[in-house]
Amino acid sequence: MNIKAFVFDAYGTLFDVFSVMEKCEELFPNNGEAISQSWRKKQLEYSYLRQMMGKYRPFSEVTRDALRYAVAETGQDLNAEDEEALLGAYKELEVYEEVPQVLKELKEQNVTVAIFSNGSHDMLDPLVAQSPLSDYIDHIISADDVKQYKPTPASYTHVIDSLKITRQDVLFMSSNGWDISGAANFGFNTAWINRKEQPVEELNLQPSSIYHDLTGLKNWK
Amino acid sequence: MNIKAFVFDAYGTLFDVFSVMEKCEELFPNNGEAISQSWRKKQLEYSYLRQMMGKYRPFSEVTRDALRYAVAETGQDLNAEDEEALLGAYKELEVYEEVPQVLKELKEQNVTVAIFSNGSHDMLDPLVAQSPLSDYIDHIISADDVKQYKPTPASYTHVIDSLKITRQDVLFMSSNGWDISGAANFGFNTAWINRKEQPVEELNLQPSSIYHDLTGLKNWK
Repeated sequence: MNIKAFVFDAYGTLFDVFSVMEKCEELFPNNGEAISQSWRKKQLEYSYLRQMMGKYRPFSEVTRDALRYAVAETGQDLNAEDEEALLGAYKELEVYEEVPQVLKELKEQNVTVAIFSNGSHDMLDPLVAQSPLSDYIDHIISADDVKQYKPTPASYTHVIDSLKITRQDVLFMSSNGWDISGAANFGFNTAWINRKEQPVEELNLQPSSIYHDLTGLKNWK
Repeated sequence: MNIKAFVFDAYGTLFDVFSVMEKCEELFPNNGEAISQSWRKKQLEYSYLRQMMGKYRPFSEVTRDALRYAVAETGQDLNAEDEEALLGAYKELEVYEEVPQVLKELKEQNVTVAIFSNGSHDMLDPLVAQSPLSDYIDHIISADDVKQYKPTPASYTHVIDSLKITRQDVLFMSSNGWDISGAANFGFNTAWINRKEQPVEELNLQPSSIYHDLTGLKNWK
């Protein structure tokens, strides 16, 4: 199969959000795991709800709102300084161990390498810039450019419009099952990076391939 | 304020889903709480994702798919008999203790009383029929009638189209914060039945009123 562009989701796929959990635990001892899990859950939920209500706001704002809810849920207060520190952690995430080498090898094959994320550029651009990946990423594509969140077909359309290719030319990678479902629904080739050994989503949309981490891409035919 | 129709969400608002958890625990000892929580979470998530992907399926199917995921997540098998038993539990839910008296008093005031739920009629109709509420409910309105899930504006539009009233005539009650946000976004008067003392959703949409249970409605002005 002739893939022209390898397009990666960011959070959980290239970048490990574990350090956000550590920061939560540092600021809210014994509540770090609960807050970080609720934060991630509400972050996704608010993006879905705003999409459905026709009340789009950028992911940086959705992420802030979700954090406020997650902390409020524990009955604790969130001061402005801690809020900034926690949101700042999203711009300093580490990449998963195998990611730089895999992206380096892809670039050596002269294909396009891109990120496509719900994150807005004020989150994504500094994140990539401080990472060891900036030399290997040709395009940072954000759902915010078109104000349509994944998994709407309109969001994935923005990828092929940006890269000026057809959907069959794309291999899309994400660790998020719902994102792979959305990409498969749109007609991308998909590789689900199932880092946590989760079941396939029950949405009648199968990934083209399933790998444990990005090194599995070497087996892509 | 002159309210012509009191419109209630079903699951968690009028009907207590606790008995579903008991059934989960009976069939999957020590995993009942985990499965029932994951089941509810995936049920909502799948309704959102299908809405966004343009791949609507009725809530009865979404509920079945979510159950299959929730059980698979625990590494256990779900046989056809247990699946039917668990889905059947959704049609035999008990109402919260205060509900019959509150609905009876509303009916005595000669206002319209309706249910509006994401549930499809194959779930809702038998549920209401076996409950002590059937005498007090004038209309069972389902998102499935228009194949648009809450919290889309199109779903709430179906309520006023069905009842032939304007949105200002409606007081909408739900225990689900996201549902109240969607109803407020549409322009309904809202009363959030905050049974679990949760924080207000961070979606910049405030409920008109917040009550701990339905008896709070007696304070509605």
